[in-house]
Amino acid sequence: MRILILATGPTQEKYLQTGMDHYLKRLKNYQPKVEYKEIKIPSKVYSYKDINEIKKAEADTLLTHIDDADYLTILDERGKTYTSTAFANYISSILIRGYKRWVFLIGGPFGFDEAIYLRANHQIALSKMTFTHQMIRLLLLEQIYRAQTILQNQSYHH
Amino acid sequence: MRILILATGPTQEKYLQTGMDHYLKRLKNYQPKVEYKEIKIPSKVYSYKDINEIKKAEADTLLTHIDDADYLTILDERGKTYTSTAFANYISSILIRGYKRWVFLIGGPFGFDEAIYLRANHQIALSKMTFTHQMIRLLLLEQIYRAQTILQNQSYHH
Repeated sequence: MRILILATGPTQEKYLQTGMDHYLKRLKNYQPKVEYKEIKIPSKVYSYKDINEIKKAEADTLLTHIDDADYLTILDERGKTYTSTAFANYISSILIRGYKRWVFLIGGPFGFDEAIYLRANHQIALSKMTFTHQMIRLLLLEQIYRAQTILQNQSYHH
Repeated sequence: MRILILATGPTQEKYLQTGMDHYLKRLKNYQPKVEYKEIKIPSKVYSYKDINEIKKAEADTLLTHIDDADYLTILDERGKTYTSTAFANYISSILIRGYKRWVFLIGGPFGFDEAIYLRANHQIALSKMTFTHQMIRLLLLEQIYRAQTILQNQSYHH
């Protein structure tokens, strides 16, 4: 299965990018077909005064990157929380299903439009705490990497 | 109140250090007496074969940095989880108590010895998920910073 991790907009902090590169590289040893991509939202969108309009316009762009056949997991505060071991089991349970591609979608600072919630197959939260949507990119990559080491019974995860 | 964030051993990844510096600097705008310190554990400790002996020796060193009068919060997987807003309320509730110093303690990869659990006033977990003890340093600094912005009703936290 191909795994595509989509983030809304560029990563602004170089230190986060360095950490993300680190885990993405290690993750590819387990899942060679994993890809990470940042979706450019047209800049005019952020001139809209209504947050709901911004979210709707973001969703229009984001959804063009998601195919009908994709299994879509979105990162959302209201999503299900897991231990790392339970998250590894979730990953394992989806990987054995027949999807061509699994998309993880990380939103922007305003959260998702209703259209994204309607399209999503599953919602997860990495913590009850709120972290920046920028930092979530690093945390998600680390947890997907950690999940692989758990599934392979390796010593990274104590 | 002075706030001391203690971590066990050095930060190995430069990208994490950059992020930590970023949040520590911003945090000092709210809490000028916050300090972050890494405790050097004698290297011979890590030659011990028994993990429990390592944890015990680590605890002996860590406890020399904690005064009897300190309020001690430890970061532990088994600790209480919070939303960021609830964490801000916890911080606020301790700050108004008469402690001279508040110590947050982040352990090493093996977790804490029983002596640390016995000394701790409170245990918190930043997530049900496990993150590296290195990454927890960045996440804790970000959450303590976020808590200040929540308590001051500022726009960092949506």
